Amino acid sequence: MTAPRGSLILVPNTLDFGIAADAPDVREVLPASVIRTAARLTHWVAENAKTTRAFLKRVDAVMPLAQPLQALHIVELPRPQKGARGAPATDLTALLDPALQGMDVGLISEAGLPAVADPGAALVQAAHTIGIPVIALPGPSSLLLALAASGLNGQSFAFVGYLPVDAAERAARIRELEALSRRANQTQLMIETPYRNEALLGALLAHLQAATRLSVSCELTMPNAFTRTDSVQGWKARPIALPADVPAVFALLAG
Amino acid sequence: MTAPRGSLILVPNTLDFGIAADAPDVREVLPASVIRTAARLTHWVAENAKTTRAFLKRVDAVMPLAQPLQALHIVELPRPQKGARGAPATDLTALLDPALQGMDVGLISEAGLPAVADPGAALVQAAHTIGIPVIALPGPSSLLLALAASGLNGQSFAFVGYLPVDAAERAARIRELEALSRRANQTQLMIETPYRNEALLGALLAHLQAATRLSVSCELTMPNAFTRTDSVQGWKARPIALPADVPAVFALLAG
Repeated sequence: MTAPRGSLILVPNTLDFGIAADAPDVREVLPASVIRTAARLTHWVAENAKTTRAFLKRVDAVMPLAQPLQALHIVELPRPQKGARGAPATDLTALLDPALQGMDVGLISEAGLPAVADPGAALVQAAHTIGIPVIALPGPSSLLLALAASGLNGQSFAFVGYLPVDAAERAARIRELEALSRRANQTQLMIETPYRNEALLGALLAHLQAATRLSVSCELTMPNAFTRTDSVQGWKARPIALPADVPAVFALLAG
Repeated sequence: MTAPRGSLILVPNTLDFGIAADAPDVREVLPASVIRTAARLTHWVAENAKTTRAFLKRVDAVMPLAQPLQALHIVELPRPQKGARGAPATDLTALLDPALQGMDVGLISEAGLPAVADPGAALVQAAHTIGIPVIALPGPSSLLLALAASGLNGQSFAFVGYLPVDAAERAARIRELEALSRRANQTQLMIETPYRNEALLGALLAHLQAATRLSVSCELTMPNAFTRTDSVQGWKARPIALPADVPAVFALLAG
């Protein structure tokens, strides 16, 4: 007899990192199916165990957890080594043992959808390889909300992650992305560590052409959310300071 | 005196097209902030007025609308002409008149996030141009749920829309996307009209290399949701039939 298998369930987190003292009711940004599933899961694989416990406390406030927080099994994803493409698949398969024993396993990031602009894809791949069903629950993605709010092309777009930190390499990459955008009329989305938001904005304005449109979104789904889209020329004529303590999503479309 | 301006609010729809006889409670897939906002908005710009009314009936069932459905102002987005890049901006600006008069205007698609793989970006751009704030509410995107569930690279990905219908052009485009994917380790996402799902799958299996990984997701967030990811070789060895009546998201990553 083979026990029925559990699933790997991708559970979206809020986009606020749960750090605000006044972190809002999770029901404001997550649908009922997510809350209910998060409340019943007993096994988790997490980008960060501490923020997962903070998330589950917020869930518990609106729907009691099936087991006390202390009784839950929360395992952190192995950190990918610099330069490597993730940990060996054998390590990851062990994280799926509860699913082989019939229990559903939740995968959760610090914010937004797991495995998108975040670790976790290798675990999902391992699930497919050993035949564990993968279920993605609906939730917010800062990338796609920023794209929707930008007014740039949503029919063709790419997310390219982080730009190089070295100034010369970054300038070359910015010109490369602008050329890619022009060739395919493709919006290029990127992110940056918050304290470098201003530096990235400065580099984009320095190296993009005047007619290229640039959009910056911060704190989407939060009280101070904003999206600004303007030509590079317009950004230079009407400069604004970006916050240095919250993530931003940058998007460009060659004009 | 200038009246305070309203905002353009991007309201996500469910992913089920509201067509199922047993269309579920919208709270299962949309958060409370979306339901509350949809219930209070009196002015809408919609991809499709009929499906917007169907959506608002589902909202009304869980949170009474501020005004009767018949009293709401629902205007359809002008259909983009084949080959053109959307209607002239002047037409679109008129759709934002209520916002200039202080009323919030909702933008909504038939499914998922407006302005992403859907019309609406030109209206959002018009809002930025005339200084109407744009607010994106959190909701599901079939593209990003499919990406998360695929296990393919979520740190670098592109959405390329539809592939050409002509067989030779489609084959060339598939090889081009595989080359792009290999060069940048970038997942390539695409969609197809449901009745061509099988034809696209066949073309992908015919023209991609054996080690390239291919993922197909259908009906995410719905009862029959599934995601299958396998190598092209694996798909050929273990073929499955795709449904011809529901949208699918295809994703590939060169092996």
